[in-house]
Amino acid sequence: MAEVKKVTLNTIVSLCKRRGFVFQSSEIYGGINSCWDMGPLGAELKRNLKDWWWFNMVKLRPEIEGLDSAILMSSRIWEASGHVECFQDPLVECLSCHRRFRVDDLANDKCPVCGNTELSEPRFFNLMFKTFIGPVENNENVIYLRPETAQGIYVNYQNVMVTMRQKIPFGIAQIGKAFRNEISPGNFIFRSREFEQMEMQYFIRPENADKWFEYWREQRWNWYKSIGIDENKLHWHKHSEDELAHYAKIAFDIEFDFPFGQKELEGIHNRGDYDLSRHIEFSGKNLEYTDRITNEKFIPYIIETSAGVDRPMLAVICDAYFEEPEIANPDKIRTVLKMHPRLSPIKVGVFPLVKKEGMPEIAKEIAQDLRKEFMVFYDEKDSIGRRYRRQDEAGTPFCVTVDGQTLKDRTVTIRERDTMVQVRVKIEEISGMISKYIESWIRDKGI
Amino acid sequence: MAEVKKVTLNTIVSLCKRRGFVFQSSEIYGGINSCWDMGPLGAELKRNLKDWWWFNMVKLRPEIEGLDSAILMSSRIWEASGHVECFQDPLVECLSCHRRFRVDDLANDKCPVCGNTELSEPRFFNLMFKTFIGPVENNENVIYLRPETAQGIYVNYQNVMVTMRQKIPFGIAQIGKAFRNEISPGNFIFRSREFEQMEMQYFIRPENADKWFEYWREQRWNWYKSIGIDENKLHWHKHSEDELAHYAKIAFDIEFDFPFGQKELEGIHNRGDYDLSRHIEFSGKNLEYTDRITNEKFIPYIIETSAGVDRPMLAVICDAYFEEPEIANPDKIRTVLKMHPRLSPIKVGVFPLVKKEGMPEIAKEIAQDLRKEFMVFYDEKDSIGRRYRRQDEAGTPFCVTVDGQTLKDRTVTIRERDTMVQVRVKIEEISGMISKYIESWIRDKGI
Repeated sequence: MAEVKKVTLNTIVSLCKRRGFVFQSSEIYGGINSCWDMGPLGAELKRNLKDWWWFNMVKLRPEIEGLDSAILMSSRIWEASGHVECFQDPLVECLSCHRRFRVDDLANDKCPVCGNTELSEPRFFNLMFKTFIGPVENNENVIYLRPETAQGIYVNYQNVMVTMRQKIPFGIAQIGKAFRNEISPGNFIFRSREFEQMEMQYFIRPENADKWFEYWREQRWNWYKSIGIDENKLHWHKHSEDELAHYAKIAFDIEFDFPFGQKELEGIHNRGDYDLSRHIEFSGKNLEYTDRITNEKFIPYIIETSAGVDRPMLAVICDAYFEEPEIANPDKIRTVLKMHPRLSPIKVGVFPLVKKEGMPEIAKEIAQDLRKEFMVFYDEKDSIGRRYRRQDEAGTPFCVTVDGQTLKDRTVTIRERDTMVQVRVKIEEISGMISKYIESWIRDKGI
Repeated sequence: MAEVKKVTLNTIVSLCKRRGFVFQSSEIYGGINSCWDMGPLGAELKRNLKDWWWFNMVKLRPEIEGLDSAILMSSRIWEASGHVECFQDPLVECLSCHRRFRVDDLANDKCPVCGNTELSEPRFFNLMFKTFIGPVENNENVIYLRPETAQGIYVNYQNVMVTMRQKIPFGIAQIGKAFRNEISPGNFIFRSREFEQMEMQYFIRPENADKWFEYWREQRWNWYKSIGIDENKLHWHKHSEDELAHYAKIAFDIEFDFPFGQKELEGIHNRGDYDLSRHIEFSGKNLEYTDRITNEKFIPYIIETSAGVDRPMLAVICDAYFEEPEIANPDKIRTVLKMHPRLSPIKVGVFPLVKKEGMPEIAKEIAQDLRKEFMVFYDEKDSIGRRYRRQDEAGTPFCVTVDGQTLKDRTVTIRERDTMVQVRVKIEEISGMISKYIESWIRDKGI
């Protein structure tokens, strides 16, 4: 029997490139450190993840509203949030080669590149990307690329509450890009300088903070189960006093067993009234909440659920990656992504068994009909076995094959990814079968 | 009968604020010039527009692949694309007040702010936002926020083609943010410094350029019809020689009659082999295409369809905006957004007629059940008439009302936005009825 190797990050990176999940940004120009482009399958997987989050966090919930605020915001917001002052790393410069390093990345007080021991004093470096708005580059026109989407929610909370007639407790959710000029990015798409967040801020009465914090911890944990991630690879990490961000009263991370260690997917934070108080102070606006029944005025507390998109995406791929001996031929290994079919970029591959006897025409017709509902990949090149393997690697849950019998009775075979079981169904039954199976998929059991 | 006012941009801006479509970015800090936040309804309308584009341009098409490339790319890309050299406006500075202006915005060689006549010589100002990647601010680390998404497609075209097994003709589509440091932004979300694009690049044999150019003109025109925009307000504008961008061989814009004039929604361009040739020259990589049958090698031509998201969004709102005398009470005006129900942010409002006799409980149950399929807004405040009006202004195509009869026979009334016709249906029929009606909506006839 063929040997199954341990999954390393390199294995995942290589699959992602090969199947069109992730390409290095600006690759033909030698790449740009720590920015990544989502290829056709990566773009689709991210869309599915984001849509599922939005469905659960916005569409199903009467008390949560969506928002899509701009990346460019007034720099006063980042003064108020504390990012101008606190969002920085200490750097030292090598006085010989003039490269700069994070203090905690230095072993032995020696430049890790040229070995020189003369280093500058540490200097603080802000992690926000800075640029200028308008044609004049002066202090007045400095703006930053947002390092988190959350602040766009806080500064809009009254507008959203009033226009949507919400009252406490209510939430605002948004998905969008954020940017951090990390000194030591790495681990593929895990820590990059441009990334995407899915954040939800829940505005509550201060005395209910503990209750809602526990509520959201449970909700978010269950969401990761709902995307099919093995619960044994998920862990809670409670922030100790010295780990807590400047805005947080209490913080728990949901972490995942990546090939490079147990790392954060999402943080659930009780931010107290820190953010709104600071925006009251810096903007001079009254952002207090007035209870319409008791007339009581207070600054709401905020419970935040802050997830990446790229990190859950990487976790889904790592979790779903299996190399296993083929059943029919145990000397051979098949590579398969057993991800939740709801997330799969391609839902169904459609193949003619051979390129003759009108099979391609029928297969193309079936494919086009299924495209109204699902992402479909039509493939007629190479042996049917190789076409199945390619779809296994892409995480495609179903393959439909048009064969000789199709010409006689308009039935096709449909093959399931996890079990490799094939059944024969009528052409008009394919769509309903796929929809039903996506809903009923259970991890490790297939469908 | 009440008088109907002419629709101005101010009317639209005011509706957008009032109903939660668009807020000014950083409003509590006095706003940031020409950046906008999408409120709950705007975020949803944009999602619906983007999803409909993606459905038509990617999901339904075997020969077009999706992509989601990074905003931050190597600055070499913008040298190759010509943006570093050509993407600039001539500015002059007032030598008295030191404000800067675009040369074409100056009347009479006088500063339009302080009236001083001493102005600097024109100087070219690049419209790309510039920042630095990593901790060192030097020329080597300059990067730009992308001013268009197209280049992310060109530099990935071979990766996409190979991983997805495409051959010419094929296309790559992506949706994403782009940034231009405009000197004179304006007209609300029409021209802003941060905006979103939906671009598709179609790679073809050079000799087929005219054919595909005509094909895509027709496809894209029809797409605007499919989102319900009045065809009488759509126009073609052919670029004259001196309007053509540096990369374009021929260009047609689809324009719309905005309240502030006839302006561009989308450009369809024959970019020839300009972009790939430049990337071959600057990267030193071979980006030629090899025909697998004839073994012929050539640089593909590219037909581009480049649309905004914010502009079609604004066009949809302007086009759908009506103030019309109420039928039952012609002295009163109702404001209504008669947009295609496929785009409507909220698909159905659910109301108890009064807040008693168990009506709110039944209405909430119906609302929660419908949320699995549609964006739903539950509202129990104010008279039923006012609740209908609010949904008319939001463009909500259906309102479901639970009344006394519901308690007896589990039927509700369902009111249609355009015709204001109400019919009585069983609770379990609501969902199917809405889905069917969304598909069959016809402009000016309602459903």
